[in-house]
Amino acid sequence: MIRIPALGALALAAAASAQTPAPPPPPPPPGSSAAILATAAPAEWVRIAPSDLLVMDLARGRDAKARRVVIRLMPAPFAQGWVGNIRKLAAAHWWDGLSINRVQDNYVVQWGDADGEDAAKARALPAGLAAIPESAYTVPAPAGLVPAGAAAWFRTHGAAPSPAIVGGRTVFRDYNPARFGAFTKGLPFAGGAEGVWPVHCYGSIGVGRNLSPDTGTGAELYAVIGPARPLDRNIAVVGKVIEGMEWLSALPRGTGTLGFYETPAERTAIRSVRLGNEVPDLPAFEYLSSEGPTFAKYVVARANRQDDFFRVKAGGMDLCSAAPPTRRVKSG
Amino acid sequence: MIRIPALGALALAAAASAQTPAPPPPPPPPGSSAAILATAAPAEWVRIAPSDLLVMDLARGRDAKARRVVIRLMPAPFAQGWVGNIRKLAAAHWWDGLSINRVQDNYVVQWGDADGEDAAKARALPAGLAAIPESAYTVPAPAGLVPAGAAAWFRTHGAAPSPAIVGGRTVFRDYNPARFGAFTKGLPFAGGAEGVWPVHCYGSIGVGRNLSPDTGTGAELYAVIGPARPLDRNIAVVGKVIEGMEWLSALPRGTGTLGFYETPAERTAIRSVRLGNEVPDLPAFEYLSSEGPTFAKYVVARANRQDDFFRVKAGGMDLCSAAPPTRRVKSG
Repeated sequence: MIRIPALGALALAAAASAQTPAPPPPPPPPGSSAAILATAAPAEWVRIAPSDLLVMDLARGRDAKARRVVIRLMPAPFAQGWVGNIRKLAAAHWWDGLSINRVQDNYVVQWGDADGEDAAKARALPAGLAAIPESAYTVPAPAGLVPAGAAAWFRTHGAAPSPAIVGGRTVFRDYNPARFGAFTKGLPFAGGAEGVWPVHCYGSIGVGRNLSPDTGTGAELYAVIGPARPLDRNIAVVGKVIEGMEWLSALPRGTGTLGFYETPAERTAIRSVRLGNEVPDLPAFEYLSSEGPTFAKYVVARANRQDDFFRVKAGGMDLCSAAPPTRRVKSG
Repeated sequence: MIRIPALGALALAAAASAQTPAPPPPPPPPGSSAAILATAAPAEWVRIAPSDLLVMDLARGRDAKARRVVIRLMPAPFAQGWVGNIRKLAAAHWWDGLSINRVQDNYVVQWGDADGEDAAKARALPAGLAAIPESAYTVPAPAGLVPAGAAAWFRTHGAAPSPAIVGGRTVFRDYNPARFGAFTKGLPFAGGAEGVWPVHCYGSIGVGRNLSPDTGTGAELYAVIGPARPLDRNIAVVGKVIEGMEWLSALPRGTGTLGFYETPAERTAIRSVRLGNEVPDLPAFEYLSSEGPTFAKYVVARANRQDDFFRVKAGGMDLCSAAPPTRRVKSG
């Protein structure tokens, strides 16, 4: 929100950089989330296996830039039936040549087979996809994942900010007092007496479906670009974009019902979708552990921004805004 | 999130429409937010004066479509000093020929004078702009705006969902237990012991500034395209986009620091910015009153989606997702 940085100074820096290496960036402000991240122990950065990544290359845009979207697939215990299907679809190169067919502003970007509902034209699905029941939207909370009674804690601590540390874990109050939010393996989930389930945050990937009891195969996917928490437990959440979200979020909005494009020419073609272990030039990625000591401090700093621009601290934040960062690292 | 609608059926409907008028759309599901909106009394739809609208026409995109963004200026008691400056800037046609200079994914789209920090190149501001103090970010709560102790109510009602009806008003729990959220004149605000202030939701318009105590003149503006509540009370919120948000949200993301474009060619030109009463072809707009009986029911329906797609109800929602709708109406 700062105004345009001094362009004269930037031009000077650019001219200088032609002769001398750029100076290192200034250190982050003390107490800021960036400063706290810099203190994380190496073991708090968790490598994501390439086989747990889904890499979608879109057709180049009008500016000829390559558009690669890197998705982290949901780890156990969540949504593993749909994730299994997605692995099969990727191995079969099923999405290659299909398209992004829907962009609804402040909601979702959806891709798959634009002819999927037309039996005469639909692309055949690979053999062996599992039919997953609605009961799989929610799973029992693994032992140690969250303190028992996390939702009840907020009900009896009405004066507590959100997030709060409950039983040693960073836990978020939900709009619904029967629920709570938290992170595991770097990803957000919610829970209650029914168990736990992954939630819809910015960049979350979900499985398109028809009306219940259909839960979708995983062939039709969408990325969240706006508030979508009401979809929680109504749709399977199977991953999260960790790089290249801007290639989805900046697509033109569709003008048809629900943001579907009205003409085939408006769709964005998918060149290929591959599991990360099939992509030769893929860098390695790590996420900050949501179980380590740095994450709890990071969240507090994010809820109370420390740099000079923020004079008033928010004193709290929502689950989706607190996601641990992901970073590229040199392979090896 | 439904899969692609049956394209065969759509094609059939299109063919039929060549001969016969399109059939009326099906009625919304009973209990849905759309069905509730249809019950609003005419007096609950409040006309927005054209002079309270700011109309920004961008240069046409590569697809040659006109791109018009309609902004509702913030009503009293909030931010009137900056709004007064914005009226003067629009009357002076000050933004004409300037550009959108920054798009930071999931955060803000910012426009103004790309040379604003370069004294030799900056466009001169019109005479008579006011310097507004930081104290104006917050104003005393007008009598009757919210029940006294709205924040305290949530602290002592930890088991209440959010939103809740407190003193006859729909009130939202904040992440910070010293605060609450609500709506007035159709727009979201937050409050606490300090008073009340407008908040950053999707489509909110804020005033760019340098470091405090500068609060900005209103010449440098941004639209919110992601979670930005930490900016509340750190920046002036002066309006909200009510139509054409997709022309801002779908712009290419900038690759420089903070999402600034790195080259002038990437910027999007502003053709003109005018107050609505200077725009001859502008339709009339109305918003659903946040003070009427329908809004409270609308929020409950939004928090517990009633259509067949949603099997599990969220049982609560956040302030920004609850905004009353705005609609175009025939002038007259």
